[in-house]
Amino acid sequence: MCRHLAYVGPPVTVAELVLEPKHGLLHQSYAPIDMRGGGTVNADGFGAGWYPHPGGAALRYRSAAPIWSDQSFPDLARTTRSAAVLAAVRSATTGMPVTVTAAAPFAEGRWLFSHNGVVRGWPHSVAGLAAGLPVVDLLTLDAPTDSALVWALVRHGLRAGRDPADVLVDVTAELERAAPGSRLNLLLTDGAGVWATAWGHALSVRAGDESVLVASEPIDHDPGWQEVPDRHLVVARPGTVTTHAIRTTDETRTA
Amino acid sequence: MCRHLAYVGPPVTVAELVLEPKHGLLHQSYAPIDMRGGGTVNADGFGAGWYPHPGGAALRYRSAAPIWSDQSFPDLARTTRSAAVLAAVRSATTGMPVTVTAAAPFAEGRWLFSHNGVVRGWPHSVAGLAAGLPVVDLLTLDAPTDSALVWALVRHGLRAGRDPADVLVDVTAELERAAPGSRLNLLLTDGAGVWATAWGHALSVRAGDESVLVASEPIDHDPGWQEVPDRHLVVARPGTVTTHAIRTTDETRTA
Amino acid sequence: MCRHLAYVGPPVTVAELVLEPKHGLLHQSYAPIDMRGGGTVNADGFGAGWYPHPGGAALRYRSAAPIWSDQSFPDLARTTRSAAVLAAVRSATTGMPVTVTAAAPFAEGRWLFSHNGVVRGWPHSVAGLAAGLPVVDLLTLDAPTDSALVWALVRHGLRAGRDPADVLVDVTAELERAAPGSRLNLLLTDGAGVWATAWGHALSVRAGDESVLVASEPIDHDPGWQEVPDRHLVVARPGTVTTHAIRTTDETRTA
Amino acid sequence: MCRHLAYVGPPVTVAELVLEPKHGLLHQSYAPIDMRGGGTVNADGFGAGWYPHPGGAALRYRSAAPIWSDQSFPDLARTTRSAAVLAAVRSATTGMPVTVTAAAPFAEGRWLFSHNGVVRGWPHSVAGLAAGLPVVDLLTLDAPTDSALVWALVRHGLRAGRDPADVLVDVTAELERAAPGSRLNLLLTDGAGVWATAWGHALSVRAGDESVLVASEPIDHDPGWQEVPDRHLVVARPGTVTTHAIRTTDETRTA
Repeated sequence: MCRHLAYVGPPVTVAELVLEPKHGLLHQSYAPIDMRGGGTVNADGFGAGWYPHPGGAALRYRSAAPIWSDQSFPDLARTTRSAAVLAAVRSATTGMPVTVTAAAPFAEGRWLFSHNGVVRGWPHSVAGLAAGLPVVDLLTLDAPTDSALVWALVRHGLRAGRDPADVLVDVTAELERAAPGSRLNLLLTDGAGVWATAWGHALSVRAGDESVLVASEPIDHDPGWQEVPDRHLVVARPGTVTTHAIRTTDETRTA
Repeated sequence: MCRHLAYVGPPVTVAELVLEPKHGLLHQSYAPIDMRGGGTVNADGFGAGWYPHPGGAALRYRSAAPIWSDQSFPDLARTTRSAAVLAAVRSATTGMPVTVTAAAPFAEGRWLFSHNGVVRGWPHSVAGLAAGLPVVDLLTLDAPTDSALVWALVRHGLRAGRDPADVLVDVTAELERAAPGSRLNLLLTDGAGVWATAWGHALSVRAGDESVLVASEPIDHDPGWQEVPDRHLVVARPGTVTTHAIRTTDETRTA
Repeated sequence: MCRHLAYVGPPVTVAELVLEPKHGLLHQSYAPIDMRGGGTVNADGFGAGWYPHPGGAALRYRSAAPIWSDQSFPDLARTTRSAAVLAAVRSATTGMPVTVTAAAPFAEGRWLFSHNGVVRGWPHSVAGLAAGLPVVDLLTLDAPTDSALVWALVRHGLRAGRDPADVLVDVTAELERAAPGSRLNLLLTDGAGVWATAWGHALSVRAGDESVLVASEPIDHDPGWQEVPDRHLVVARPGTVTTHAIRTTDETRTA
Repeated sequence: MCRHLAYVGPPVTVAELVLEPKHGLLHQSYAPIDMRGGGTVNADGFGAGWYPHPGGAALRYRSAAPIWSDQSFPDLARTTRSAAVLAAVRSATTGMPVTVTAAAPFAEGRWLFSHNGVVRGWPHSVAGLAAGLPVVDLLTLDAPTDSALVWALVRHGLRAGRDPADVLVDVTAELERAAPGSRLNLLLTDGAGVWATAWGHALSVRAGDESVLVASEPIDHDPGWQEVPDRHLVVARPGTVTTHAIRTTDETRTA
């Protein structure tokens, strides 16, 4: 089911977001509060992405092992500062491989992406949707997992220069139509903004004038955390957070 | 804290003991019932040992990754049959490395060994005890962990040809004196018998005329499971199970 | 570039084929003789597949680490006996991930498969060819590598019930047309027969009345080894080895 | 046998030292020039250490896998800048485990250390020497390897506040006496200076007014590289490099 977060604001260390908070991703990896749809821990790999040069390409550190057992990550996380970070801990869906290539964040250029959830009936349910992608995208799918396909769909929209909010809404709606009952919390950043969907899973936002944090679960007791209502999109930048209902085409037609 | 089991009886597959039971080690790795002394999962590696030739040396399969994420183990476990098996899933004590060399079972010749628990104050508390071992034993300690030292102590007694029951009782008592409050569930097999201590942690036995199974937690709902009282040693073979109170020398002296 | 072998004959241990021969795959992993097309070692993972029940499904042991550093494999290889084995050591092509899911043998039911070589211009050169596969096959490609696609193409033919020899010849010819200059040594077994192509890379056969061994390089000094001529298919069973020239359609047309 | 280097000078990226040079450690990992005493590649793990805060404690990134297959290291190495770096690629001596805890650099506080070579007759030959260490040092030996013991011996001297040059000379001489024929290229930095021994293995220095680089093999064609004569100690800082003959006590006595 996974757990993830994205941050944009004044430079912080990766450790301040992931390791040090009382209920940060490290804690959520072995003691998550809300694991709807199965799983008890998030111990099937983890990853963090950040920006060494603001406005430039993202970097990643990923592993197929539990975040708590990694012997290099704490040192790195304490000394890596960035004005934007996206990190995730993974709980593999049964039948999908535990391998570093399946660990979020997925990345291209300045984009970092993570999917928290599951695509029902994968792979058969989404074969039609996947058929709309270039074959080369399928040949280079990061891993044979639902999340890697979701990333390929999102990336396809971003490569076309479309607005990230539209891309997330459309991919969510298309997946829901193809695979009803899926859990589709998508999380995307370009280092300046954060786009995220709450679709069948928990999501919270903590926003201020200078920074914004979007996470599966609040990582601390700050009273500023707001839960995102289910089936909604969040678009967040320091100083600006907007929330929009997501409607599948079918709903739109009925309306 | 770890979870472990040992079996002696008619040949079974490793999977029948570890993967298939409703509450086998696979299940205990992510949903243990009784994790006294901390930890929530046993995801810091695992191992299984068995005997390809009855009476011969033991073999091992071990990994530093969670048992559920291993892609080769299920196939192997389903096709590996043995008349004796010792298996363990590991929850590393904070500060001790997650590495394959720290995963039980520890082995030498026909002996397989596992420790479920923690040595309080390690390493300082047991430096005196360790000083009694040959230096070469310390240089070749499997890993810088309390469990590897416990194994070195046990192995030292076995190499001297001492009775396994005496060895486990003495090592337990010595460790308790050096590091009071330690949890010291030791588990040992030579492929024919099983020796185990319950010292600060749960332990159960399921014995019959043809087989015997000693485990941290019952792996099924068989009514034959008996809990071993705390601070006791179990010596088990098919058809014969005896339980003995363990007394530290101090207690003996007071008595 | 990889190195691989397949054996069918009286039961042997995996170690007798892979670890013990003077120039077995273990030796070839760090000291291969013939690495056409680049690479100096085969240290990007390895795997072995075999048959616990003759006529039944194959099993696999695979790792992303060098074969020589694996601490469980020697024990397993020495005690695993099978009447058919396919094993491989991997040298990843630059740009393709080193992950266990990319390590041969690839498997389905009783089929075990390995590819030694490289597909030129991957992935773009073969997008057209891949488009002929069911989308679900692309979504579940074992890894984003040329070899995983070659396996998907071969598997597609086998699933259709076609003759393995025809499948290997056709896939080789199709890949050569789409990606000229590729190295395409394919190796397939069902536990009873071995099918293999020599296409741009070395391949040798050692055949007898009771057993047959097909390998990238002879693993010993047995005088019975015969080199397979380039651009040929070998079909081998104990007692019967036949070799056939492979022609691409273009050549056929010119002829 | 391993390969290592240490740098002190104006801040550079780890990649400039390890990945980008034509014959940097990445290249030496699969194509070393001089592997005296066995081994063909250095593919049994690697590590790099550096200083996020000049004068402060060192950090490490280490892995048990070949440096070329690591999917996170290139990104990190390109963006990690430090005024001092120590890095190593490992070739495990037969019989010693391939595990991350056995990979250099070893570290404590501001010290980073690596050993290129082998201790003959380990562990028996050096049991007497090891007996002089506190038992706790042996219990917490990073791994059951000769190099980890060499580090423990060096660390013991450093903890006592002794001069690093004296420590390296003494440890080298003591090891040679205990285990004649050993290869003992030791490499140590505190982020400001570099101390290294050439003892049975190649070592070169490239020194300037602003920086100094000590490496198993020259990493480029700069004419400034100087080979360190065998059985010598190098003490290097930007602007100052001195070389001293190392004599064992026996030699001193004969002289």
